[in-house]
Amino acid sequence: MSTVNTTTAPHGYSLPLSPSGQASMITPPPWHFSGEVVMVDYRVDPDAAARFLPPGLSLGDDPGAAAAVFARWQWCSSDGAELASPRRSQFTEFLILLGCEHDGVPMARCPYAWVDSAVPMIRGWVQGMPKQLGEIHQTWPMGVGAAGPRPSEPGRYDGTLSVHGKEVAAATVSVRERVTRPPVLHTVPLVHTRMFPRWVPEEPPQEQLVSSVVTDVEFGEVWAGDADLSLFADARDDLASLAPVEIGSGYVFSYAETLHSGKLLGGRS
Amino acid sequence: MSTVNTTTAPHGYSLPLSPSGQASMITPPPWHFSGEVVMVDYRVDPDAAARFLPPGLSLGDDPGAAAAVFARWQWCSSDGAELASPRRSQFTEFLILLGCEHDGVPMARCPYAWVDSAVPMIRGWVQGMPKQLGEIHQTWPMGVGAAGPRPSEPGRYDGTLSVHGKEVAAATVSVRERVTRPPVLHTVPLVHTRMFPRWVPEEPPQEQLVSSVVTDVEFGEVWAGDADLSLFADARDDLASLAPVEIGSGYVFSYAETLHSGKLLGGRS
Amino acid sequence: MSTVNTTTAPHGYSLPLSPSGQASMITPPPWHFSGEVVMVDYRVDPDAAARFLPPGLSLGDDPGAAAAVFARWQWCSSDGAELASPRRSQFTEFLILLGCEHDGVPMARCPYAWVDSAVPMIRGWVQGMPKQLGEIHQTWPMGVGAAGPRPSEPGRYDGTLSVHGKEVAAATVSVRERVTRPPVLHTVPLVHTRMFPRWVPEEPPQEQLVSSVVTDVEFGEVWAGDADLSLFADARDDLASLAPVEIGSGYVFSYAETLHSGKLLGGRS
Amino acid sequence: MSTVNTTTAPHGYSLPLSPSGQASMITPPPWHFSGEVVMVDYRVDPDAAARFLPPGLSLGDDPGAAAAVFARWQWCSSDGAELASPRRSQFTEFLILLGCEHDGVPMARCPYAWVDSAVPMIRGWVQGMPKQLGEIHQTWPMGVGAAGPRPSEPGRYDGTLSVHGKEVAAATVSVRERVTRPPVLHTVPLVHTRMFPRWVPEEPPQEQLVSSVVTDVEFGEVWAGDADLSLFADARDDLASLAPVEIGSGYVFSYAETLHSGKLLGGRS
Repeated sequence: MSTVNTTTAPHGYSLPLSPSGQASMITPPPWHFSGEVVMVDYRVDPDAAARFLPPGLSLGDDPGAAAAVFARWQWCSSDGAELASPRRSQFTEFLILLGCEHDGVPMARCPYAWVDSAVPMIRGWVQGMPKQLGEIHQTWPMGVGAAGPRPSEPGRYDGTLSVHGKEVAAATVSVRERVTRPPVLHTVPLVHTRMFPRWVPEEPPQEQLVSSVVTDVEFGEVWAGDADLSLFADARDDLASLAPVEIGSGYVFSYAETLHSGKLLGGRS
Repeated sequence: MSTVNTTTAPHGYSLPLSPSGQASMITPPPWHFSGEVVMVDYRVDPDAAARFLPPGLSLGDDPGAAAAVFARWQWCSSDGAELASPRRSQFTEFLILLGCEHDGVPMARCPYAWVDSAVPMIRGWVQGMPKQLGEIHQTWPMGVGAAGPRPSEPGRYDGTLSVHGKEVAAATVSVRERVTRPPVLHTVPLVHTRMFPRWVPEEPPQEQLVSSVVTDVEFGEVWAGDADLSLFADARDDLASLAPVEIGSGYVFSYAETLHSGKLLGGRS
Repeated sequence: MSTVNTTTAPHGYSLPLSPSGQASMITPPPWHFSGEVVMVDYRVDPDAAARFLPPGLSLGDDPGAAAAVFARWQWCSSDGAELASPRRSQFTEFLILLGCEHDGVPMARCPYAWVDSAVPMIRGWVQGMPKQLGEIHQTWPMGVGAAGPRPSEPGRYDGTLSVHGKEVAAATVSVRERVTRPPVLHTVPLVHTRMFPRWVPEEPPQEQLVSSVVTDVEFGEVWAGDADLSLFADARDDLASLAPVEIGSGYVFSYAETLHSGKLLGGRS
Repeated sequence: MSTVNTTTAPHGYSLPLSPSGQASMITPPPWHFSGEVVMVDYRVDPDAAARFLPPGLSLGDDPGAAAAVFARWQWCSSDGAELASPRRSQFTEFLILLGCEHDGVPMARCPYAWVDSAVPMIRGWVQGMPKQLGEIHQTWPMGVGAAGPRPSEPGRYDGTLSVHGKEVAAATVSVRERVTRPPVLHTVPLVHTRMFPRWVPEEPPQEQLVSSVVTDVEFGEVWAGDADLSLFADARDDLASLAPVEIGSGYVFSYAETLHSGKLLGGRS
């Protein structure tokens, strides 16, 4: 009996575990992502940024470099099955990124992230990316008509984030010209702290410094121009310490990657 | 006093009326729309279609011609102000269209429509378009990566409609080639029955046959191919009578128009 | 042919019209409502209130009397069919009420209203009630445990309204004792301006001053105490002119009514 | 410098980690829950139930015992702060429970669970409870009027679950009389498999059999009567194997508990 039970033990890449494994909320990696990005480079107080970096990471060459990133994504697993359900393969995202360095390698730290659906949220936690649920909207370029900018042309793009019914971030990017290089913080590896809250008292706390392993990175045309950015955090929130002290350029571009796994870094583990 | 009161009477294009008029939920026309459309031509039982046509409309030359239309829109009023808020200027839509004729002029009748936000819903009722709230999703073409078709290339597009937590429609369009003409039912005027439910017992019922007056119609590239379409209406619902008896081609295209007003037609008025 | 077509003309209490009439989004009245209310009496600048009153209404005996009302409702048509679907029979609502008078009869004017679903929104417009979509939450009394006040006991109730991802109203009511009378503005008839935006250029504008005809009004126990209220309207919005200049008592009570029709009042019609 | 950095390392009970720890999405336990429950006892094929039990659990004395549970909750942390925000302290839930046994102790296994907001979803994963996002609605008892049953009286309660825009479960409970005992599966400990998906290739898979430690359990009046239950799972889904083969009684009751931690059980760990 127990032998039989072992062979049929409920399993899966994630919860829910089930007899066939197909109930798993999350499909196993790799995951393919195709996205449209509206991004604003900005600067924060370097001391504030440093307080968000765990041991093992330092501010690097450009202390205070930061970015706000709005993106709308389509994603699929290796067999592409999710694409048949746009409701399930689409999501929107807002990130804050901080420039940092690990062992001399430039990286980006994501102290805050929001997405609009549950699967990418949990998938974020698997990686150590602190995704919460929010409502994210960004301008779509439109092929015809008066209601939106044209793709691959100068134009205005807006983005907003609301969380729990309150506005948290708003950005405007007015792209003027095509540039040859994507913004730096979208080209370096992300480094996360993978952790899972304690529940069983005797278990040790677990935190791992992990960078994301991606392949098949692809950028479309990168358009750049002026930008504006506001963060409406409550003054008591740690988020408020990452408000802009200076706003740089804005960017609009297509971006794709395939996300495979996490690579354990030295540091707090 | 009453003179003063008259000059300051609350007003607006729509409810809510307010002292300045700016509280109006709906801005006055014209309204500009830029959209991305996934559309399936199909055929219904001509008798069923006829039962959805009010006096003044007949089936015309192609009885039983129908279409299912998924669209995602950006819109703005004449000053374009809404574009600064993508949350408010974007919506998604699903329509059923039936081919018909008024006084020898080919038109399209929309017996059912759903959108995902309140402003376009009310704006539909202003026109006589029977918009309700639903959840509509359709595949986005993506510029890079593995998660979605490329714009202006062969590829697969899916669309779904859910209403009150139940799936109502699902379509798949696999476009193969660019064609020179858009699908007929997206090129003829829409004809609606403008009506407002009775509330004050003594008022007469009001129904007007009205066609929509649009300008600045623009089509992007039209791509066509095979299609599939399912309607999951409860068998007791009138919607079930409009289920496909034959499925035609599928189309993907960009479309824009400016919507100005309604034109009263002869008929039941 | 036309005879046949007449007998089968699509019909319904509201759009969508259909062969059987069952596609109508709105069922014909009467409609039964059972609700739980959290309400704050407050005062606005009487001049600001006057600017929201159409000809035919005056401020009455208590100029500047106002209320903010949070409610969660269950509703059904005369056959009660909707109750089998809690998803469709439940909604939440936030109203602002202004004290006023018509022909010496005390009434309440509702300059702004939000609900969280489409059917009550459209039903509001049928009556002339300016309902828009928002996200409304209010504390539930709970029968057991630490997470909420007990029904029919002193306790704290909070309410919030968010619209388009921004917070618009927040209230706190700390009830201390049962009182014998419900708050006045919840006991007088509502008076609305029934209007429908113009669409066909030649049609005359229509506005009717209409009071709501209700029966079977029922109040449960009324509990009262201290209150707080904030409106976060943009200073440029007309709504900002209705911000509290003084905050009165707060109330929590159950309330029911049956809504039948509108009664045309003299005035701007 | 590194000393300083250590003392200010970002921290928190959960992601997001931040300098003060207050950005944590999840507050540390204990968590207080007050709820209203609509529950249906039913039976599944015992072999199907067994296939959902991990090593360490067996079917116990009543193989095939199952329940479907709809609940609406208010919750707060130990300081009760969340209660000031009903938007954040309320959620709805649907569970399936299977009767089982560990070391001779009757327990309940939850193979599937859905909630309507993100914090209880992540909190479920912390415990090993496989919560996903869904839309859950259940009838509210109302104190007055025609639109709903009265609390503590015979009446009808309905519940529905939709996931990704499709209906997944629907139940009807018609309570007739007050009973002295709550349904068994709501009185035994829940036993979960706490696991976290693999991300760093070299880390070992982790699964722990954990029961939930609760105190301050409180039941209000328990009312019971007839019930109906449908699960609309796709036949290929593992969920379909847990469809009812027999439907028992339905129950309506208030329930509260305080949830503290997980207790590691022998078994697959």
